[in-house]
Amino acid sequence: MQAEIITIGDEILIGQIIDTNSAWIAQQLNTIGITVKQVSSVADDSTDIIVALTLASGRADLVLVTGGLGPTKDDITKQALAAYFNCGLRRDPAVLSHVEAIFARSGRPMLDLNRQQADVLDGCEVLFNEQGTAPGMWMVHKGKPYVVMPGVPFEMKHIMQERVLPRLIHVEGRRPLWHHTVLTAGIGESFLAEKIADIEAALPPHIRLAYLPKPGFVRLRLTAAGKDTAALKAETHAIAAAIQQRLGEYFIADEDTSLEALIRDRMQQQGVNLATAESCTGGNIARLITALPGSSAVFEGAAVTYSNATKKALLGVKEETLQRHGAVSEATVREMALGAQARFHVDYAIAVSGIAGPDGGTPEKPVGLVWIAVAGKQQVVARKHLFGQDRAINIERASAAALFMLWQLLNAEG
Amino acid sequence: MQAEIITIGDEILIGQIIDTNSAWIAQQLNTIGITVKQVSSVADDSTDIIVALTLASGRADLVLVTGGLGPTKDDITKQALAAYFNCGLRRDPAVLSHVEAIFARSGRPMLDLNRQQADVLDGCEVLFNEQGTAPGMWMVHKGKPYVVMPGVPFEMKHIMQERVLPRLIHVEGRRPLWHHTVLTAGIGESFLAEKIADIEAALPPHIRLAYLPKPGFVRLRLTAAGKDTAALKAETHAIAAAIQQRLGEYFIADEDTSLEALIRDRMQQQGVNLATAESCTGGNIARLITALPGSSAVFEGAAVTYSNATKKALLGVKEETLQRHGAVSEATVREMALGAQARFHVDYAIAVSGIAGPDGGTPEKPVGLVWIAVAGKQQVVARKHLFGQDRAINIERASAAALFMLWQLLNAEG
Repeated sequence: MQAEIITIGDEILIGQIIDTNSAWIAQQLNTIGITVKQVSSVADDSTDIIVALTLASGRADLVLVTGGLGPTKDDITKQALAAYFNCGLRRDPAVLSHVEAIFARSGRPMLDLNRQQADVLDGCEVLFNEQGTAPGMWMVHKGKPYVVMPGVPFEMKHIMQERVLPRLIHVEGRRPLWHHTVLTAGIGESFLAEKIADIEAALPPHIRLAYLPKPGFVRLRLTAAGKDTAALKAETHAIAAAIQQRLGEYFIADEDTSLEALIRDRMQQQGVNLATAESCTGGNIARLITALPGSSAVFEGAAVTYSNATKKALLGVKEETLQRHGAVSEATVREMALGAQARFHVDYAIAVSGIAGPDGGTPEKPVGLVWIAVAGKQQVVARKHLFGQDRAINIERASAAALFMLWQLLNAEG
Repeated sequence: MQAEIITIGDEILIGQIIDTNSAWIAQQLNTIGITVKQVSSVADDSTDIIVALTLASGRADLVLVTGGLGPTKDDITKQALAAYFNCGLRRDPAVLSHVEAIFARSGRPMLDLNRQQADVLDGCEVLFNEQGTAPGMWMVHKGKPYVVMPGVPFEMKHIMQERVLPRLIHVEGRRPLWHHTVLTAGIGESFLAEKIADIEAALPPHIRLAYLPKPGFVRLRLTAAGKDTAALKAETHAIAAAIQQRLGEYFIADEDTSLEALIRDRMQQQGVNLATAESCTGGNIARLITALPGSSAVFEGAAVTYSNATKKALLGVKEETLQRHGAVSEATVREMALGAQARFHVDYAIAVSGIAGPDGGTPEKPVGLVWIAVAGKQQVVARKHLFGQDRAINIERASAAALFMLWQLLNAEG
């Protein structure tokens, strides 16, 4: 079974917002064996919406529409849908009471615009939206299901999880696909491809391999198609094992996870804890770690030391070291790491100092130069990196490299 | 002139990555008067690519393709393009030397896969890619320009900025659109809509208003269509001024900027500096500030104090305060802010402590409860917030709220 996602909204087409809904919907559909054939983003324009629906109905067995609903947009989208389905709109009493209750609770006066939120396509099944005022709709047209949802991500997710996915589970024609993703770090995409070229070449026709690079990491995704999920699992598991053996330390995890999640779990198992001392990454490593639920079990804190004064005051870096070697140097990051270890009373500490750019570079210490140290239970390791010109990417790559160095030390000392 | 963007990649359609390229490309095209009519995302599949190109060529005057290039993907996309354009591939000597130089510099051996990066569509103009191995291509087919670029965001951006936009400036048929975006904070979308309902209702037909909400902020975008850019500028400027007068302190900036950039600039003008003391935001506020070039002029650093021990050791929060009021309390955030101010020797300090979730909530202090304090030159202000259940959104909203409080205090004390 193949689906198409249509996202509606001028804000997408002028680039003011990034469409995150499609990726999330695609993930959900994939897990239940529905393939997304295409994503189409169109403007808040009747003709464009109707053309997109027409083309999608020719390509896909299921059409999901997000966006274009809400008090200031309802008119265009709902009218276009009604024209496409050749039906009228009716005011749904249950949705109307829900909208009225929301306004009563907030003590705000209710406007006509708000009442119109309760208008739904005649003939649709209402997908009730407890999280907002715009309901979802399930419409069957010429035997094909159409799902219409608001574009606000948490409202859309709520409707998908509570109303749409439970219905789709019972739809015929889902084609079991099994995805097995593994995480690698510290090796570039083409080296990786070279190292596993023979494994890739030997893949059976029903299994595909995709490379998904991000700064510092490459995910490898095996996608297997077939009826027998247990057999597909076994097959992809064996291939992943072969890849793991080939890649050695670059193979980080036999699952689609993040290095910070692996670190959190490993540190919790080992009963050790962590602090970071960050200059050019500016708190980004701490942010990545604390974005994870449960990180407080292993993470004590961070000192973001953006000036020499704070490097000395918070981490005990010596004035002499800064004078002699500069803030971006092996000697400084070593002292930062040891300083963080001592002051946070932790087993492991990461320290990063570099020139993120665009300014601050010199011929000797160019933009992109980053020193990273990790202090562990028995040793301090330090490494120099030379990234590129882009500030955001330098921060991202430095953070990834620091986490990878910590991961290696955890493995070495564990 | 209308454009269509085609993004190619299985990883988009299974939801493994979020397509951020389209939004960025759309922004760039809009600023030079090219409207994006549709974005279509298709799989790494020859037929799908060819169908997408065919449909796009019927809808748009300009087609931009991203993704599907790179050492491990080249074969499908370039072959599909060659089939669509009915041309062959040729190996470009300049691109080949560039790729060879990259490999020589890194000391890595060069593979056949890498050499194939230098294969380009016969008849295209090469859009040289200094940032990577996959070149862009500019192809004119039946009088219509097609732009093909790699999907790696910083490579695509580089090619767009250096090679594509300078060419598009000279293309006929661009329709002048003027966008004027303003930033508001501290007020929700529907309240905002209510406050400026009469201004919105009185807009002339050629000017549209869009609400673009993000956690903690709403951007308002006025889009004016017409030939006379100077007149459009004057019109939207007058409307923005009316909105500013109506909104008062909620109106943050008469431009599309970020609160952290405004804070950096204001602090630099005032010659004051900043530190943060972060518990539940985990370094995210520091990360937002240091993501900006030039932030080192005003930002001293941050103490991310994820445990009570570090709140005491790094910020001097009293054991008694923690015992009596808890880590998430007005008393604690006040001491954190004053502690940061003293230890970082700064004029202003932000402190945040809350329960980000999903665990750690109690009936008295539920998930989403966040206390924020800002210490300034003359006073410390503290405020309690109650956000929602989602950890990521709580971190984002708490960061936005803290920056807004700092902004208000800077204004009050400036």
